[in-house]
Amino acid sequence: MPIITLLTDYGITDSYVAEVKGVILKICPDATIVDISHDVGNYDITEGAFHMARSAPYFPDGTVHVGVVDPGVGSSRRAIIIQTPKAYFVAPDNGLAAPAAERLGVEKVYNITNLELLPEKVSDVFDGRDVFGPTGALLAKGISPEVIGTEISDYIRLPSYEPTVTGKTVEATIIHVDGFGNMVTNVTYEVLSSLGISDTGRFIVEVKGESLELPYVRRFSAVPQGDLLLLVAGGGYMEFAVNQGNAHERLGVGAGEKVLFTIQ
Amino acid sequence: MPIITLLTDYGITDSYVAEVKGVILKICPDATIVDISHDVGNYDITEGAFHMARSAPYFPDGTVHVGVVDPGVGSSRRAIIIQTPKAYFVAPDNGLAAPAAERLGVEKVYNITNLELLPEKVSDVFDGRDVFGPTGALLAKGISPEVIGTEISDYIRLPSYEPTVTGKTVEATIIHVDGFGNMVTNVTYEVLSSLGISDTGRFIVEVKGESLELPYVRRFSAVPQGDLLLLVAGGGYMEFAVNQGNAHERLGVGAGEKVLFTIQ
Amino acid sequence: MPIITLLTDYGITDSYVAEVKGVILKICPDATIVDISHDVGNYDITEGAFHMARSAPYFPDGTVHVGVVDPGVGSSRRAIIIQTPKAYFVAPDNGLAAPAAERLGVEKVYNITNLELLPEKVSDVFDGRDVFGPTGALLAKGISPEVIGTEISDYIRLPSYEPTVTGKTVEATIIHVDGFGNMVTNVTYEVLSSLGISDTGRFIVEVKGESLELPYVRRFSAVPQGDLLLLVAGGGYMEFAVNQGNAHERLGVGAGEKVLFTIQ
Repeated sequence: MPIITLLTDYGITDSYVAEVKGVILKICPDATIVDISHDVGNYDITEGAFHMARSAPYFPDGTVHVGVVDPGVGSSRRAIIIQTPKAYFVAPDNGLAAPAAERLGVEKVYNITNLELLPEKVSDVFDGRDVFGPTGALLAKGISPEVIGTEISDYIRLPSYEPTVTGKTVEATIIHVDGFGNMVTNVTYEVLSSLGISDTGRFIVEVKGESLELPYVRRFSAVPQGDLLLLVAGGGYMEFAVNQGNAHERLGVGAGEKVLFTIQ
Repeated sequence: MPIITLLTDYGITDSYVAEVKGVILKICPDATIVDISHDVGNYDITEGAFHMARSAPYFPDGTVHVGVVDPGVGSSRRAIIIQTPKAYFVAPDNGLAAPAAERLGVEKVYNITNLELLPEKVSDVFDGRDVFGPTGALLAKGISPEVIGTEISDYIRLPSYEPTVTGKTVEATIIHVDGFGNMVTNVTYEVLSSLGISDTGRFIVEVKGESLELPYVRRFSAVPQGDLLLLVAGGGYMEFAVNQGNAHERLGVGAGEKVLFTIQ
Repeated sequence: MPIITLLTDYGITDSYVAEVKGVILKICPDATIVDISHDVGNYDITEGAFHMARSAPYFPDGTVHVGVVDPGVGSSRRAIIIQTPKAYFVAPDNGLAAPAAERLGVEKVYNITNLELLPEKVSDVFDGRDVFGPTGALLAKGISPEVIGTEISDYIRLPSYEPTVTGKTVEATIIHVDGFGNMVTNVTYEVLSSLGISDTGRFIVEVKGESLELPYVRRFSAVPQGDLLLLVAGGGYMEFAVNQGNAHERLGVGAGEKVLFTIQ
């Protein structure tokens, strides 16, 4: 059973996601379609890219990931397929799928040009339904990307997430606040081990002009219920959390804001 | 693999939608179930009908569309099957499925009467789970509608969406505001071409006592980012939009309100 | 086709639910995955248990129900499988799956110990993806629970929902407010028949210091549109409702609050 994932900024109130699924099932009736998220902020490519990059490694080999956060729909922006060893990505060429594909290893990139293979008339206003969904379905069905597009040598990348390390201090950025209020930073295990931190530790954190000393731990329950902590969570990034609570409500820092960590 | 779509006003916080799916899978274990929307406003038949009519044409032949927005559950309102050449619709007889079925072509209508075919005791309070879902599953499994119901000659229709055209002026209604803030009117391509507009044009728009001159274009990117525009979007209706922005936040006009268009 | 249901407090904005599904599909590629709800309040075991118990009976025999509301993730709380005659439940041992499993009949309980069977390294922060999802997938694939865990003789139960009956008066608790504003109490058919009520009746209700006389009826349409009523709805509990309206907006009573019913 071919697997197709869908990430969009369409929301789930309108029928837009369903229309994309209908068209996919016309082409590839036995597809298993998995929603990554449709609650990406409208036109927020960075947030969409974050969810795609986080989730893609957990899917079976052969999965086709379709992403549509597409402020440039109807403009001259390209629609692309990125081929990796074990998965395809189909998305507008605006960076949306780049971090996910790079995480799996970019092999080839194709510009989707053979629009006559797609069952719906391309409307210039709804490429999720008319281009990206059906392209994903064709790939899931086993059609080669060379049949659908033309190989190209470049694609648009997003600015990298990397923090700035100066001695014992890391200038980091909050890249996401999740549904539990956990505030995800761009600090990875690699950054932490470059600082000499392996298992646990303590940081002085400067956040919104305030200075806090926080433990870096391995699990939420390492601190009392209601206490702030730092840990590397399921996505590989260090995040602020509160054991059984909400760090974002406590600290009020959102995506894009800077934080300073100094090892104790 | 039979396809069943579901549209309800149940929301996704409660387990109601899941219960409907459980019962469907009891009857038709290999069904692919696709959610159209469960965020229809409680009891809002018009909004549910809008989503059903928009999305139905994008599904494969043989799809069974189940809709449940059912303020009259437990009353004497009928539960019906509408047969079209390529799809079935199952819904309360309150107009919910009528525009969608009419879009695909109504062939026959059945009153669901053979309740003993349904696996759950009909509770009079949850017909989505007890009547509409299982009926859809029986149809998806290949049971003929004649076995489940009795043919009838009428069904409840919704008032039509048509705008009033007087010379160069169209009195239109906002029929939906989508998740991007696009405001969908009841003005179709047919209405536009009756006005002599084919590709692009300009309108003077009177909206909430204000008068605006707006371009009618083919794609969002035809105007600078942040500018208002009019275009026919994926659903076939002309809508107000802002290139990479939110028209509803800009104009503050909601579903049901009137707008006046005059061609320039 | 094996069926796996998922209930979490992860929300649907993040990719967490999708990651769980990806891992499930790696192990059991032909699984049909059904969402019960992902909008359970963060860490709200009682609410999650309510949805699991309500929905489980409507699924086919052989369904595997995976529940993850897990404030104790990474602590010493056990991860368990509860076997019932017709379904498995996989959840943290915190009571989440207990009411649902008890409704279907608890046969055996297993502590999930053979973590080496699970494809992802257990991270101590995301057991939904690393433990519960993959365990559910192994069971759905036909692996015996004895292979995955060790039989144990106890599991954590939730406090029972039962109301206090004194003569003609019932002290009840609101256990849930649904998306329609219906306020579900812990009064079952059994309680009602112990009071001598079979079909319909009238109650004096004391709620928030106010006293109301309300009809107990069989269907919403038994009272005029906009009127308050009491009825036993799809889940088997008596609830407050307004015919085509919102009882919660009217009465303002939430989950956990007490109500007093006296039969007339």
